[in-house]
Amino acid sequence: MSIRIGIYGYGNLGRGVELAIGQNPDMTAVGVFTRRAPSTVKTCTGIPVYSASEADNMTDKIDVMILCGGSATDLPKQTPALAEKFNVVDSFDTHAKIPEHLTAVQAIAEKAGKTALISGGWDPGMFSLARLYGGAVLPNGKDYTFWGKGVSQGHSDAIRRIDGVVDAKQYTIPIDSALTAVRSGAMPNLATDEKHERECFVVAEEGADKARIEREIKTMPNYFADYKTTVHFISLEELREKHGGLPHGGQVIRCGQTGANGEHKHVVEYSLKLDSNAEFTASVLVACARAVYRMNQAGDVGCKTLFDIPPAYLSAKSREDLIKELL
Amino acid sequence: MSIRIGIYGYGNLGRGVELAIGQNPDMTAVGVFTRRAPSTVKTCTGIPVYSASEADNMTDKIDVMILCGGSATDLPKQTPALAEKFNVVDSFDTHAKIPEHLTAVQAIAEKAGKTALISGGWDPGMFSLARLYGGAVLPNGKDYTFWGKGVSQGHSDAIRRIDGVVDAKQYTIPIDSALTAVRSGAMPNLATDEKHERECFVVAEEGADKARIEREIKTMPNYFADYKTTVHFISLEELREKHGGLPHGGQVIRCGQTGANGEHKHVVEYSLKLDSNAEFTASVLVACARAVYRMNQAGDVGCKTLFDIPPAYLSAKSREDLIKELL
Repeated sequence: MSIRIGIYGYGNLGRGVELAIGQNPDMTAVGVFTRRAPSTVKTCTGIPVYSASEADNMTDKIDVMILCGGSATDLPKQTPALAEKFNVVDSFDTHAKIPEHLTAVQAIAEKAGKTALISGGWDPGMFSLARLYGGAVLPNGKDYTFWGKGVSQGHSDAIRRIDGVVDAKQYTIPIDSALTAVRSGAMPNLATDEKHERECFVVAEEGADKARIEREIKTMPNYFADYKTTVHFISLEELREKHGGLPHGGQVIRCGQTGANGEHKHVVEYSLKLDSNAEFTASVLVACARAVYRMNQAGDVGCKTLFDIPPAYLSAKSREDLIKELL
Repeated sequence: MSIRIGIYGYGNLGRGVELAIGQNPDMTAVGVFTRRAPSTVKTCTGIPVYSASEADNMTDKIDVMILCGGSATDLPKQTPALAEKFNVVDSFDTHAKIPEHLTAVQAIAEKAGKTALISGGWDPGMFSLARLYGGAVLPNGKDYTFWGKGVSQGHSDAIRRIDGVVDAKQYTIPIDSALTAVRSGAMPNLATDEKHERECFVVAEEGADKARIEREIKTMPNYFADYKTTVHFISLEELREKHGGLPHGGQVIRCGQTGANGEHKHVVEYSLKLDSNAEFTASVLVACARAVYRMNQAGDVGCKTLFDIPPAYLSAKSREDLIKELL
């Protein structure tokens, strides 16, 4: 029997979920739920489009709803609301607000007998797992997370809000010398600006004051002021041609010491190189949906994170095959 | 309350477990159990040494027994036998025989109400997890495991058994061009001899026929015949000085494709660089012992692998702290 998945929200992430379901023979995409007029939305694989308000009438047709909205305003409302009727998966990624989000979802999912997984994806998500496993195995150590080289949508958006900017892409780039130092096992202390730099490709309006735009970018608190930032002004054509994708990735590195006097060093590195941030995130969410379905079947309800999921639950393979083929 | 750990077997791995317990404030090493005369064994940290036969009388003093014997002859007998009285952890690493070992341990542990974890360590173990997570998230893909650069004790032992050999160390070395091809996401098909080569440092008896020894090494089936193998004859002093350690490591790389036509490539890499193979393996076993203790407390009995363990169970941190600090 196929696991029936609903897709709630249909931007880059929703499209990625739709395509990822097609790679998993044990799942079926039931349809997309949107706040837009359904007739204006065309899906990649031809699955039906429903109005978001119709979801409530389809509880018997969907085993897991994957929420593909944003963390700023959509998910804090949608995940608790939908967890009352569905098993749900989201990619809530505002790290500081995860505990609050978990508490809100937990109360509702538990009462409704549903299973919810929050903060799936790669960070939070696979990177969080790498941090947990690394620290559990090497408690005398230190971990480092590097992001990039990749496009930060938040930073690109921040540049676009500056007066006189038509469009922009921002790449977060790990600083090579920092990566090398960490990989050596030397456990350096690294300040924020010693780990990453930022490179911005900006399309300015004709006649705009580029010096002012560059200054506004470089002095923007939180986003750029603490980093070495490079700004390139380019044409809209060049931006579209050379910077159209959404690649991303990064590394979680755990350095630790063992032995009677910490004489043996160990370096554990988990690294991602992703052509499409959204499609990889979607692929993680789809594996999480399988786990959520199985946990709910087993009576394990409430709000979960990847930290709570027995890894075997994520895989389409049977436990027997996993042990034989992958252990 | 501290988790009380027994160490069954006291070679490199047992010593590593003893030292690793010292890094985990929520655990106590109760003592070492040995088949040797206890008075002849001196522990690193001064913990008591008992005869292996005394273990049966100490079931109320030990929460988890970590088995530190070998996979060839010790563990197939010891793990089932001890799982009747104790929660146990082992590092059984004969991949082809894991299903059989699991079945044997499962029957006994389940009946006794004990929890057993088999095949902890890094391969099987952390590498197995990397293969599982990689495949669950990127089902359209391929995985590659590289080992080394590191000392293979099995291959070193095989050389030592050759007539005229005093001592030897064998390094397994991943072939750079293969690693580069895999990391590019190109998903190459690689034959055995295209992934690894073998470098041997051999001390021969005075007057031994070195050409014969080299030939016997290079033509040894399974161990060397399928690989590019280099043999260096060196003095015992040089072997001890330059090749005394047991470093190891390697990479599990999952390459996958997403998108409507597989147009986006993704490369997930989990890599280990270990100064001490035994101490890192021991560190994994100790984290597994924590999980086994918790699973047993929760009534989850029988034979488990790392695939079955919710990651949070491995960490000394509370779920709340994990979510706040690492998610």
